[in-house]
Amino acid sequence: MAKEITPREENYSQWYNDIVKKAGLAENSPVRGCMVIKPHGFAIWENMKAVLDKMFKDTGHVNAYFPLFIPKSFLSKEAEHVEGFAKECAVVTHHRLMNNPDGPGVVVDPSAKLEEELIVRPTSETIIWDTYRNWIHSYRDLPLLINQWANVVRWEMRTRPFLRTAEFLWQEGHTAHALKREAIDEAKKMHEVYARFAEDYMAMPVIKGAKSANERFAGAEDTYTIEAMMQDGKALQAGTSHFLGQNFAKAFDVKYLDNNNKEAYVWATSWGVSTRLVGALIMCHSDDDGLIIPPKLAATQVVIVPIPKPNGEITAAAEQIMVKLKAKGISVMYDSDKKTRPGYKFAEHEMKGIPVRLGIGKRDLENNVVEVARRDTKEKMSIAIDGIEEYVANLLDEIQDNLFARAKAFRAENSHEVNTYDEFKEVLEKKGGFIYANWDGTPETEQAIKDETGATIRCIPDDNHQPTGPCMYSGAEGKYRVLYAKAY
Amino acid sequence: MAKEITPREENYSQWYNDIVKKAGLAENSPVRGCMVIKPHGFAIWENMKAVLDKMFKDTGHVNAYFPLFIPKSFLSKEAEHVEGFAKECAVVTHHRLMNNPDGPGVVVDPSAKLEEELIVRPTSETIIWDTYRNWIHSYRDLPLLINQWANVVRWEMRTRPFLRTAEFLWQEGHTAHALKREAIDEAKKMHEVYARFAEDYMAMPVIKGAKSANERFAGAEDTYTIEAMMQDGKALQAGTSHFLGQNFAKAFDVKYLDNNNKEAYVWATSWGVSTRLVGALIMCHSDDDGLIIPPKLAATQVVIVPIPKPNGEITAAAEQIMVKLKAKGISVMYDSDKKTRPGYKFAEHEMKGIPVRLGIGKRDLENNVVEVARRDTKEKMSIAIDGIEEYVANLLDEIQDNLFARAKAFRAENSHEVNTYDEFKEVLEKKGGFIYANWDGTPETEQAIKDETGATIRCIPDDNHQPTGPCMYSGAEGKYRVLYAKAY
Repeated sequence: MAKEITPREENYSQWYNDIVKKAGLAENSPVRGCMVIKPHGFAIWENMKAVLDKMFKDTGHVNAYFPLFIPKSFLSKEAEHVEGFAKECAVVTHHRLMNNPDGPGVVVDPSAKLEEELIVRPTSETIIWDTYRNWIHSYRDLPLLINQWANVVRWEMRTRPFLRTAEFLWQEGHTAHALKREAIDEAKKMHEVYARFAEDYMAMPVIKGAKSANERFAGAEDTYTIEAMMQDGKALQAGTSHFLGQNFAKAFDVKYLDNNNKEAYVWATSWGVSTRLVGALIMCHSDDDGLIIPPKLAATQVVIVPIPKPNGEITAAAEQIMVKLKAKGISVMYDSDKKTRPGYKFAEHEMKGIPVRLGIGKRDLENNVVEVARRDTKEKMSIAIDGIEEYVANLLDEIQDNLFARAKAFRAENSHEVNTYDEFKEVLEKKGGFIYANWDGTPETEQAIKDETGATIRCIPDDNHQPTGPCMYSGAEGKYRVLYAKAY
Repeated sequence: MAKEITPREENYSQWYNDIVKKAGLAENSPVRGCMVIKPHGFAIWENMKAVLDKMFKDTGHVNAYFPLFIPKSFLSKEAEHVEGFAKECAVVTHHRLMNNPDGPGVVVDPSAKLEEELIVRPTSETIIWDTYRNWIHSYRDLPLLINQWANVVRWEMRTRPFLRTAEFLWQEGHTAHALKREAIDEAKKMHEVYARFAEDYMAMPVIKGAKSANERFAGAEDTYTIEAMMQDGKALQAGTSHFLGQNFAKAFDVKYLDNNNKEAYVWATSWGVSTRLVGALIMCHSDDDGLIIPPKLAATQVVIVPIPKPNGEITAAAEQIMVKLKAKGISVMYDSDKKTRPGYKFAEHEMKGIPVRLGIGKRDLENNVVEVARRDTKEKMSIAIDGIEEYVANLLDEIQDNLFARAKAFRAENSHEVNTYDEFKEVLEKKGGFIYANWDGTPETEQAIKDETGATIRCIPDDNHQPTGPCMYSGAEGKYRVLYAKAY
């Protein structure tokens, strides 16, 4: 089974597609650019959702739900926003089908044309700010801290499972504030929440920073991003948080009376992460034997395999161990299938990324031990059954920490500091990875470098962005030291 | 605040709309027939989801996600199915907007017309069974027990918040089985799960039964339903589970090899409940002072109100009580707002349906008591702070039980047995409610009664459906004793 995966070295892109397929995570659907998220892939997203939802609630947010459809005229109200999304919109024009008068099947009923076309939401700022106008009257109605879990559609031309799909699942936070300072603080707070989630749960180190003007969200005054390094050295934007200024408040006329009874426009943020994170998780940790899931996000953390097959004694021992593990909050399954042999099962559970495998054979039981195999390093150890729950609990923590440390070390190895454009191009071509260099702060320089090399400014890092000299491209005064990379 | 609600006796329909609005549950959106689910309403749905999701997983189901869009041609593949849904479909015809060449704003780009139109899913049998064709090869791939949480769209002409909306949120289970018997058992098992959820969590008694042919799901061989009585005596279909036979397997050519290596079509079920349940919950329990939420589904079970306003001593006592309640798994909030007076707060929390209110004043603290008010009966009691957590935990159970008992008693009072059509019409007109009568089993009789009186057969109850005499309408031999009612 594992043999069927294309090795990373040979073809990284095919390796990714192979894992998505062989680990049963997702597949293409008959609808262009839309994927089917299969149960094993969806379980990862469910676990991500549960953790994030708690983090949002712990920071004072509540959930709500806004319509799937947006009247076409709403999109035009914020100039940059429509510019950013108009070219990739799914448009609903009719509300009824009828029997085909000329043959079999059904056709669109021409008499059921909508007066105004509806857009399937690519993001919900417009419909939400149109709603907020009626919810916000005075400073007492603020702040409004709302999140939505939803599906959105952006008609992308080139799609890949999880990383870029026409329909995807996400959450979008939309908050409203009386003061500019509060809105900026909120956008930064959620930026921090995303970084914490990526590092503490996905075991994926991220660089926190601000986007350059070229890469900002359509309609934002500032976009904060977390950027992670994949195993091919490319960057993946894993989550963004936007300070929207008063752009949407002005477009939708959302004002409040401050405590001096003066009218003022409301300040806004929005922030989102999506099923793209599942793609990031796959690409960050997995190996040539299949998926690796960090224990904190694994639906099944431990699998027990009877060797060579289940019998009364082994099953009884497995059940006792399961009780102990469950009591420690560890999720565990017993693979009692009689039709397949241990070797097949080992390969299958490795492919699916289950963090820990316990093998139990007759001889093991005689010695009161089990064989413990960890997915991340492939190490195997013989461990006493007595106290196994403590051992496994610690091992899961260790695997979580190891995955993070490994990814961090990989990033360090593949991060480079350069000072000249020649050096930049050489490193980009020969080594890839993250490249730190001085930038003059102009969109022209950024665009020229992108056109010439394919690399973009991923962010102006929150830390260490002081220029160390002139811009590597223009030779003009350096404004920031920024992170360049090729990106997904 | 409470004064603004129209009493049930005066106008039941307006009473419902008032509660939806004043309790902050939902509101109409600028998109025809689509609602905005506000945080307080969404929290009820979230709690319902969490309980149901666990019940589905405990019965062996896993979650997955299928595309929002369905190719138009898929709908036509099952004849009854397309007949049932074609007239209410949102149709996507284009994938891009462009700047309006004749003025401001954006228009649909005519060059971005889709080759085949896409339907926004009204339900997902077709896309899922098209996918299952590739997942099912042999009996080893069965059963397939999958659920999806999703939004769906049915272009309804007359909509009401929660009860009937163009877009709604729901779950749809779609299972595949080798044997007919297994599929029927699955459909009945989920029927039972729905009944248990309605009664044990929503405190809403339901009649379980099968739908008559006229009322079956489009494409089903059997539809099992749970029917609840609202406070105006009308029935509300709260959840349905369908035995789909081999209809979708045949339409999408889904076959498996049985253990004799013979090819056979797969057997199917589907089952769903939706945000309609929030409407049912409101209508089942609430009163003229506002919403009543059964404690098991309340996001906030207890609110503490300082009297007349928060001070150091009261706040300290409230915090101690909160710690004790939280330790018992009770969700509690402290209403420390200084701008509003207790009377206003009481009315507001009653409007929002919080099951228990604790009032704490100076005198209470001197006597080491708090005033406990229960939402369901409006009773107030002075209770010792010592042991308050036990008292409140028991009280929440008692409220849950009382709501169920009250709804059950109401249903009993408003259920009638009749034997003649004259009697039927008189009871329907003068008393309403549920009416049990003999039916000859023909669609013609059912249709005639519906046309003449507006009442429909809600179900052939699982219990006591033996006819006690001839059909009340046709005089022909009775086939079943069935439940008639007017319905939402």
